[in-house]
Amino acid sequence: MRTPDPELPGRRREQILEAAAVCFVRYGFHQTSMKEICAAAQMSPGALYRYFDSKDAIIEAIADKHRVETAAFLQKLTDSEDFVTGFIDTATQALQVSIEKECPRLGVEILAEASHNPKVAQLFEKTDAATKKTLVRLLRSAMQRGEVDATIKAEPVAEILLALIEGIEGRSILKPSPKFRTLEPTFVLLISRLLKPARKNSGRGE
Amino acid sequence: MRTPDPELPGRRREQILEAAAVCFVRYGFHQTSMKEICAAAQMSPGALYRYFDSKDAIIEAIADKHRVETAAFLQKLTDSEDFVTGFIDTATQALQVSIEKECPRLGVEILAEASHNPKVAQLFEKTDAATKKTLVRLLRSAMQRGEVDATIKAEPVAEILLALIEGIEGRSILKPSPKFRTLEPTFVLLISRLLKPARKNSGRGE
Repeated sequence: MRTPDPELPGRRREQILEAAAVCFVRYGFHQTSMKEICAAAQMSPGALYRYFDSKDAIIEAIADKHRVETAAFLQKLTDSEDFVTGFIDTATQALQVSIEKECPRLGVEILAEASHNPKVAQLFEKTDAATKKTLVRLLRSAMQRGEVDATIKAEPVAEILLALIEGIEGRSILKPSPKFRTLEPTFVLLISRLLKPARKNSGRGE
Repeated sequence: MRTPDPELPGRRREQILEAAAVCFVRYGFHQTSMKEICAAAQMSPGALYRYFDSKDAIIEAIADKHRVETAAFLQKLTDSEDFVTGFIDTATQALQVSIEKECPRLGVEILAEASHNPKVAQLFEKTDAATKKTLVRLLRSAMQRGEVDATIKAEPVAEILLALIEGIEGRSILKPSPKFRTLEPTFVLLISRLLKPARKNSGRGE
């Protein structure tokens, strides 16, 4: 008798999600059938349907994975000693991983679907709202500690920081798109100049 | 005998493009049929096919409209006396119009299509490349005139500025999304702090 492998279901789920992501990016969300996902995952429909009974269930799992990954990045930021350095480190690392894994291509596919499917939209808007809330909280306490310019407004700054990250991700889809490492020094400069408090004798930003 | 109206074809084309945009946003590019576009434009198939023989022809016309609008914004920027003020004015005006007209929703639909349709991608990438080239040229001459910090690099700065604008557009699709006017002061601050040269006695950005 074979001993059941307790990690098999998790691996199978991951295998299906990766295959689905490849299909959504290649053909588009709507033009992808469950049959194509089976083929890409090298699984029979019977095996696949044991894990996910529809494309909607798959997109729900992708949203959940995104939520967990985002939470990990925010935890890293929360644990960092200085907000500005921490934000730069976390954001550049998140951008590198995301662009390398072609997540923005999947992201734009999901955003298009979310644009006319409120159920899908809600899945991602929940994570976004939580991310923004955490960023605002961290910005406010960094202001109190003097790490971030206390004259800026946390809410719109959080919104603008997220827009910048997502905009860089979006543009990575274009061809030719610049490698992120060629943008990184300017990204770092922008974040520093926006967030860092002016020295007392500064003539800048006044 | 009726005199032919010389402006009728232009108006009809515009009417079709607007109807198509509404359909693409509502149902998605792939889920929209030519029949639905006819219904939304309140035209017979015979009349519509006289102007556009396929969805691809419609998307080509949308890309062309986007190219013309972008060129007008860049001309305004070229004509402005000071780069930083000019960029802020032009970008905030472009963002206001774009978000109010729900262009980002159409944009994300097109970006998703472009992601797996190289022909559509090329249409928009051409405009993007031209926009970036103009921005880099304007940044460089603004640096020479001392309007923009000459220590920054024009290429990645242009890339980051476009990413920021597109990121703000992308986030306007989310619900709840902040009104752009609540972000505007922070957007202006960010652009100023990134681009403006430090005063000689500045302690900031050094």
